[in-house]
Amino acid sequence: MSSQHLTIITEADIDDIAIGAAVLGTGGGGDPHVGSLHAKHAIRTHGNVNVLQVSDLSDDGLVVPVGMIGAPSVAIEKIAGSEEIGRALDLLEQGTGRKVAAIMPIEIGGGNSLIPIAAAAERGLPIVDGDAMGRAFPEAQMVTFHLAGYGPGAVVLVDAQGNAVLSYPVDGAWSERLARVLTFEMGGSATMIDYAYPGAVARECAIPGTLTMARDIGQLLRSNSVRDDERIAAMLGKLGGYRLFDGKVSEIERAVEGGFTRGRAVLDGTGSDRGATFELSFQNEMLLGKRDGQVAAVTPDLIAVLDQTTGQPITTETVRYGARVTIVAFPCHPQWRTAKGLETAGPAYFGYDVPFTPVEDLAASAQAAAGTDPESISTLQEAHA
Amino acid sequence: MSSQHLTIITEADIDDIAIGAAVLGTGGGGDPHVGSLHAKHAIRTHGNVNVLQVSDLSDDGLVVPVGMIGAPSVAIEKIAGSEEIGRALDLLEQGTGRKVAAIMPIEIGGGNSLIPIAAAAERGLPIVDGDAMGRAFPEAQMVTFHLAGYGPGAVVLVDAQGNAVLSYPVDGAWSERLARVLTFEMGGSATMIDYAYPGAVARECAIPGTLTMARDIGQLLRSNSVRDDERIAAMLGKLGGYRLFDGKVSEIERAVEGGFTRGRAVLDGTGSDRGATFELSFQNEMLLGKRDGQVAAVTPDLIAVLDQTTGQPITTETVRYGARVTIVAFPCHPQWRTAKGLETAGPAYFGYDVPFTPVEDLAASAQAAAGTDPESISTLQEAHA
Repeated sequence: MSSQHLTIITEADIDDIAIGAAVLGTGGGGDPHVGSLHAKHAIRTHGNVNVLQVSDLSDDGLVVPVGMIGAPSVAIEKIAGSEEIGRALDLLEQGTGRKVAAIMPIEIGGGNSLIPIAAAAERGLPIVDGDAMGRAFPEAQMVTFHLAGYGPGAVVLVDAQGNAVLSYPVDGAWSERLARVLTFEMGGSATMIDYAYPGAVARECAIPGTLTMARDIGQLLRSNSVRDDERIAAMLGKLGGYRLFDGKVSEIERAVEGGFTRGRAVLDGTGSDRGATFELSFQNEMLLGKRDGQVAAVTPDLIAVLDQTTGQPITTETVRYGARVTIVAFPCHPQWRTAKGLETAGPAYFGYDVPFTPVEDLAASAQAAAGTDPESISTLQEAHA
Repeated sequence: MSSQHLTIITEADIDDIAIGAAVLGTGGGGDPHVGSLHAKHAIRTHGNVNVLQVSDLSDDGLVVPVGMIGAPSVAIEKIAGSEEIGRALDLLEQGTGRKVAAIMPIEIGGGNSLIPIAAAAERGLPIVDGDAMGRAFPEAQMVTFHLAGYGPGAVVLVDAQGNAVLSYPVDGAWSERLARVLTFEMGGSATMIDYAYPGAVARECAIPGTLTMARDIGQLLRSNSVRDDERIAAMLGKLGGYRLFDGKVSEIERAVEGGFTRGRAVLDGTGSDRGATFELSFQNEMLLGKRDGQVAAVTPDLIAVLDQTTGQPITTETVRYGARVTIVAFPCHPQWRTAKGLETAGPAYFGYDVPFTPVEDLAASAQAAAGTDPESISTLQEAHA
């Protein structure tokens, strides 16, 4: 199992990155399967993609996040083609008068980690081993650039019909509002570029090493040398995190509204959790988990739904009635636990009437109540340093 | 009373143009009063505006329509400032890499005839004596460029908050859809540039002489040498058109929905129309008039509501209960009576289940039924040739 940082991405890395990014994407970020096909095809056609570490970015080169915006339930049907991504990059270059120097994922999550790899392959550009969330979030201003006080800059939206929009919103919240209504009108999903900044700003803001982290998680979950029943524990052990619940999905509600996939799922406990229930709430991403009415993990910490047998991640739009799943949670990047981070993506922003409590503390309380010690460990951040 | 084409616009011309444009604006096009103040201030500050005839446009110079989009009920509260218009023109120049050579009204109607004059004064540019509708219409694709097969080109939207959007919609219908949702999100009203084309295209598409026509109508309605009770007849006589109804507003319904001001008004007949009723339907502009259930005039022909005493035009958002008004109608420019014109802005497009019949024919039938001859005359087009 590699613990080296990625220096090049080949076709063989894509499945690992896809699986790992789907775990870190906490159920959102777009469909990893379609994104994988796209990235593999691009690498097969145009060659491997060079990887730049965040700390190696030059001051001036324009680092460009590109991905999809919209409800994943729509995006799954309607993944961006190369042509669409190419038009978005062209419009950014034309509008800013600057050449793109490197591509970066805006978030780590399913398709939105793979589309940038495809784009980098197609344009012959390097990709940055990092992103602006350290996970996936549903809204455009939920990025570390915003936390550091940077606006969205020149924002590009391109759709499958051929419409192209270059906008200069006054701030991140306006960028989200304008992009959301445009995306909805464009059919629910579009290709987006925002927070394109010179390397010096990307070095300051990007969360480093997240593509490598996704690759490492994917290797653990796919490795032939790990037994199925040890995969989840191995991942929690390696990366830090907590097993919150084993259960079977007994209710699932999902609606596409306001340009998001919103919903909730209820699980009946299995195994050692028999007799308990767990409720998940999501808006594109999993945002809140409650066990028997008590908060077990909440945004901005990461909540992932995994197949109980194989450990494979399940996205919000593919959670199905009757599935046997394990709910796990990880601490978010420390930037999200600051006052600005919690104001931007904490429970109150999403309308959940619960305080933010770190998943480490929630796990400790829960396990103290159950008379056992919390099993884990460390933040994702520390695990990866 | 002048019948010369405008060659220069001074502060003294603004009130005439405002009143005449409000007649041709068929109730829409934005508030003429606020637009007048803006245009007068701009001329006072920056000097008079030179006027170019459509036939005099050079092949290459970029002719740029600029105006407001949105529900007039909102725009009346929220007229674009100079700063907003300046940002829109700057963004167009930056996005297209071309300098603006002349400003043109996109439509003749209230504020949207006056804002371009203000913009021309502020930028030291000439204004074109013409527009792309020959009246006002509620949707962005309802322009003669569209009828001739031209797309919207680079479209700019700028709002009072500072947001700026440059888009390249695939066609006129997409331009309308994207602009409408953006405008709604921006607060209901925004400054817009679309169909910016070189002079050769503007010469092919623009309806010539419409600012002069607005000035002439305004002079008639404001002149001290015409008696109040002769103003409306003089205007109908000079420009062609029909008096449809005299009445008192007995019902008025208005709602801002989907980015438009929609509604209807019912009038009880007065004078020779006592005992009859007249119903007006509008979407920003007056679109359909029925007398005792029979169509009296319908889009794309022009319907205007005038004060019964003074002949002053009344916009859709200022029609009030109890007002004594005269309804008049004029034939539209012949381009709107083609198959493409009727498909774009005829009654079926707006959901009215009536065929288009020219107002001349409707007036002839109505007056034959009443045993009198139709009083008029000629189309606006011919009257102005």
